[in-house]
Amino acid sequence: MQTVFHLIADDPAQRETALTIAENLTKDDSVEIDDIAIVAQADGIEPLTAGGNGSDMVESLLETGISVKACGNTLDLKDLAESDLVEGVETVPSGGGELTRLQSEGYAYIRP
Amino acid sequence: MQTVFHLIADDPAQRETALTIAENLTKDDSVEIDDIAIVAQADGIEPLTAGGNGSDMVESLLETGISVKACGNTLDLKDLAESDLVEGVETVPSGGGELTRLQSEGYAYIRP
Amino acid sequence: MQTVFHLIADDPAQRETALTIAENLTKDDSVEIDDIAIVAQADGIEPLTAGGNGSDMVESLLETGISVKACGNTLDLKDLAESDLVEGVETVPSGGGELTRLQSEGYAYIRP
Repeated sequence: MQTVFHLIADDPAQRETALTIAENLTKDDSVEIDDIAIVAQADGIEPLTAGGNGSDMVESLLETGISVKACGNTLDLKDLAESDLVEGVETVPSGGGELTRLQSEGYAYIRP
Repeated sequence: MQTVFHLIADDPAQRETALTIAENLTKDDSVEIDDIAIVAQADGIEPLTAGGNGSDMVESLLETGISVKACGNTLDLKDLAESDLVEGVETVPSGGGELTRLQSEGYAYIRP
Repeated sequence: MQTVFHLIADDPAQRETALTIAENLTKDDSVEIDDIAIVAQADGIEPLTAGGNGSDMVESLLETGISVKACGNTLDLKDLAESDLVEGVETVPSGGGELTRLQSEGYAYIRP
């Protein structure tokens, strides 16, 4: 099974909950998880920026093999460059496009 | 691919973000999108009402061919008639029913 | 068709809306619903606790045959025992795991 988490909240506590739920999924032995992705957009991008609030959790999730993807439209809107992101974070053209593509490939969608 | 956006937030800024993400999806050439729908319920109905906050964005999205659907239960609850809605908005019996039907037809679900 | 609702909001009004949408789905004759489940985690767990805010709605939904599932990680984090939950509520290892499993079985996902 595969799961994509949608990270979009502007509230730091809510974002932290989202990242914790993703981390907990990696530890749930009752489901066979083949891949986990996180797609972040709007204010959800914050923990993907180097030194941003929650970026330590994103670094830790990347180390577990979770892929983390930043919405390119959000980067443009917030005047962020790829070099502003945590190392290992990928950029996708649009968050909505990536969420559609992953679900069409069979990923479950979770929006904490 | 097909995508349905769930519009439900009571916060105007959050609703605007949701509508922007829908609009951005129409411009993402990296995914082949066959249809986009928006299902609005609860306070998410506001931009679907004529003259309501954000209704200009809904009018613009309708022009791009996105279908916009209002939850009938929400209309009842808020004492709204179909004539109170932006022209071109459809009404469905329940938001939950429409979201279920569309996903069962293969639509990806995005809840900004 | 089958639907899973994700209950996670910390705001009581938002949780009540979520439970109302689940209830309304049981009354929508335009879709053939075979099963409805609610998966609650983080602050969304509140109405699943005996005497908790909104627990009367959860009791009523359980009576209609909806299955209600509490995230085990959330119980641990909040020092809650299964005996603290409304009778009939099930416990699952993780909310994210259960949401993934149900969607992989074809459930539509709704996050009010």
